[in-house]
Amino acid sequence: MPHIPLDANLPGITGILNYRTDTALPIRELTHLLLRGESTLTRAERELIATVVSYGNECKFCTAAHAATADLLLGEKETVEKVKHNHEHAPVSTKMKTLLTIARAVQVSGKNVTTEMIQHAKAEGASDLEIHDTVLIAALFSLYNRLVDGLASITPTEPAFYDRLAHILVEKGYLPSENRYASLNS
Amino acid sequence: MPHIPLDANLPGITGILNYRTDTALPIRELTHLLLRGESTLTRAERELIATVVSYGNECKFCTAAHAATADLLLGEKETVEKVKHNHEHAPVSTKMKTLLTIARAVQVSGKNVTTEMIQHAKAEGASDLEIHDTVLIAALFSLYNRLVDGLASITPTEPAFYDRLAHILVEKGYLPSENRYASLNS
Repeated sequence: MPHIPLDANLPGITGILNYRTDTALPIRELTHLLLRGESTLTRAERELIATVVSYGNECKFCTAAHAATADLLLGEKETVEKVKHNHEHAPVSTKMKTLLTIARAVQVSGKNVTTEMIQHAKAEGASDLEIHDTVLIAALFSLYNRLVDGLASITPTEPAFYDRLAHILVEKGYLPSENRYASLNS
Repeated sequence: MPHIPLDANLPGITGILNYRTDTALPIRELTHLLLRGESTLTRAERELIATVVSYGNECKFCTAAHAATADLLLGEKETVEKVKHNHEHAPVSTKMKTLLTIARAVQVSGKNVTTEMIQHAKAEGASDLEIHDTVLIAALFSLYNRLVDGLASITPTEPAFYDRLAHILVEKGYLPSENRYASLNS
């Protein structure tokens, strides 16, 4: 049971963002800019960063939600599975592997990012902005994971829930919209 | 040296927020709502939450900045020092001690918040909204600490820098404003 009264029809982060909408708005705006805004990283690559951080923090809701979203964007489920367990052996670019290494370090602590990790990323063609965005996406999901689990929100167990959520996130993005979650519990 | 090119006149988080201003805006807005917006927690109490999380993450810049801000709001330095090392023996309310316990748990992992911690906070008069805000402030500083250290921004060592920054944060809050940091390096 959640630690504060949340709408039972809105599990995971959705009910928390609905609980206090004024603070939810900038969280949603930041997420939309980072994961859906203009970027030299694909939307799927950015969802992979969100997934590995959430997986590292053992946040089941966020991991399932962003894994399903990356799966939908990629049109297959193999990449996410491999990235979660060992991104070095996953079918992503070498540059992306160096960025996922940075994201995994940030998940534990900002201090775990080494000069070598950054040099490696730059040598593989990562730009300063891509490095900034990777660190910020990893930091943002460190926030989300703590919010979702710190308030003990409900984590649905059926995969179909996350497939429906992924469709909403791919089609509508992260900004608030009317009847945003109408199809969530169908 | 920072991992990406940041303005040398803007140490810590300030240069990072200046590096990408579109993503900085919602981060600033969220911080201003949580730390300066209407709340049944005082501004000093909310800065104490920011301080204990930053201290737990060993983020020197954020710890010094928010400790100095809490000091300025409280008009003394004893409370922050005691809260950092053991908030149970600090001169804060019993309710505030229960909220700081929750914040310290969130700093490590959202999963570390227990039902007992929540029950204890509610028994001491903490509202659902105060619990939500405590978890969100702790989650937000988990983001900030990772951003500051993950990009290896400069950490000034002289205490006078943080006194000047605290005056800016107390007088102007967290939203962007023109010549915001004009007095930072004076």
